[in-house]
Amino acid sequence: MTPKFHAMVQALKVLPGVGPKTAARMAIELIERKPEAGLKLAGALQTGITEIQHCRICRSYADEEVCTICTDPKRDESMLCVVESVSDVMAIEDSGGFRGRYFVLGGHLSPLDGIGMEQIGLPQLFELVKNNQALSELIIATNATVEGQATAHFIQQRVRQIALAEVLSLKVSRLAQGVPMGGELEYIDGLTLSQALKDRFEAK
Amino acid sequence: MTPKFHAMVQALKVLPGVGPKTAARMAIELIERKPEAGLKLAGALQTGITEIQHCRICRSYADEEVCTICTDPKRDESMLCVVESVSDVMAIEDSGGFRGRYFVLGGHLSPLDGIGMEQIGLPQLFELVKNNQALSELIIATNATVEGQATAHFIQQRVRQIALAEVLSLKVSRLAQGVPMGGELEYIDGLTLSQALKDRFEAK
Repeated sequence: MTPKFHAMVQALKVLPGVGPKTAARMAIELIERKPEAGLKLAGALQTGITEIQHCRICRSYADEEVCTICTDPKRDESMLCVVESVSDVMAIEDSGGFRGRYFVLGGHLSPLDGIGMEQIGLPQLFELVKNNQALSELIIATNATVEGQATAHFIQQRVRQIALAEVLSLKVSRLAQGVPMGGELEYIDGLTLSQALKDRFEAK
Repeated sequence: MTPKFHAMVQALKVLPGVGPKTAARMAIELIERKPEAGLKLAGALQTGITEIQHCRICRSYADEEVCTICTDPKRDESMLCVVESVSDVMAIEDSGGFRGRYFVLGGHLSPLDGIGMEQIGLPQLFELVKNNQALSELIIATNATVEGQATAHFIQQRVRQIALAEVLSLKVSRLAQGVPMGGELEYIDGLTLSQALKDRFEAK
């Protein structure tokens, strides 16, 4: 193929889940039918990648030094939700079930990969817990994977120690585990099902 | 979300098959793990969309006025393969089964949508057939859809008339139809199967 088209297809293959066929289809679609949108995409990528930074307070994405959630006075300062990644922030925001603030770890503890406390910003989180007098609940919402749960457990222990030492009245909570909404029992794994049975609640 | 990130996600949604979740995942992947590749992508899109043109001879993509296939002296000038789109050229090139040249229609006849002979470059194709003395075979490789087959039939009729009028010895051929390689009979549609039975050949 012509070199510039080839370059375009190769470049599109960097996107997750995009193989050579899909990349070629995308390139043709942009050239043939959506040239303006394609140029806009080029600009948005350029701007986004060079200018988006991590919020100084919560480590989520921000256009300025501090993100829109951290500067929003309408958010509940007394609740802080700890998540692994920015996409988790988006998922929780989309659910509409939370009006507090976030702290983004940017991963989970993984000593074998050299990812320790520093790498996931725990010193910063602990400072935040110590110095934020308004904080009354820390919700640890890491992934329900082995690594996510181990990270949650570690944070939970340390925050409890800090709360004791600093005489803070701080509640530490975790996401409920159980059967997902709309889930059919026969397709749910045994671990989840036995957990849901164990944590059953009295019907009202 | 932060405006620049939002703009990036919205812009990525223009790609075919990319919804809001995938777009967000792509944006995060580029920002977190592949910023350089992302900037390269932005550049390749910009260059590709503004600079790729249609080859003056075959209507495929070209960096210059004429594409690399039309200028390649090693390609067999006696065979011309008519396809609907640039992606068909790529598919045939990838198959390695053809060393001639191409003509890209850029669609199929569709009078109800206002797509007639002019829109798919048929006058240009017929000129090519008339004036190219080296041409000995025209392979019509439009899609095996109703529209593709109707377009093929139309081209076939007109090229036969031209060959008669101009006293050209030109063979017009179509792609073989039948059972695809690796295809399991029970999953093949009835039309294809009955065609394959009708066109059965003697085993050697």
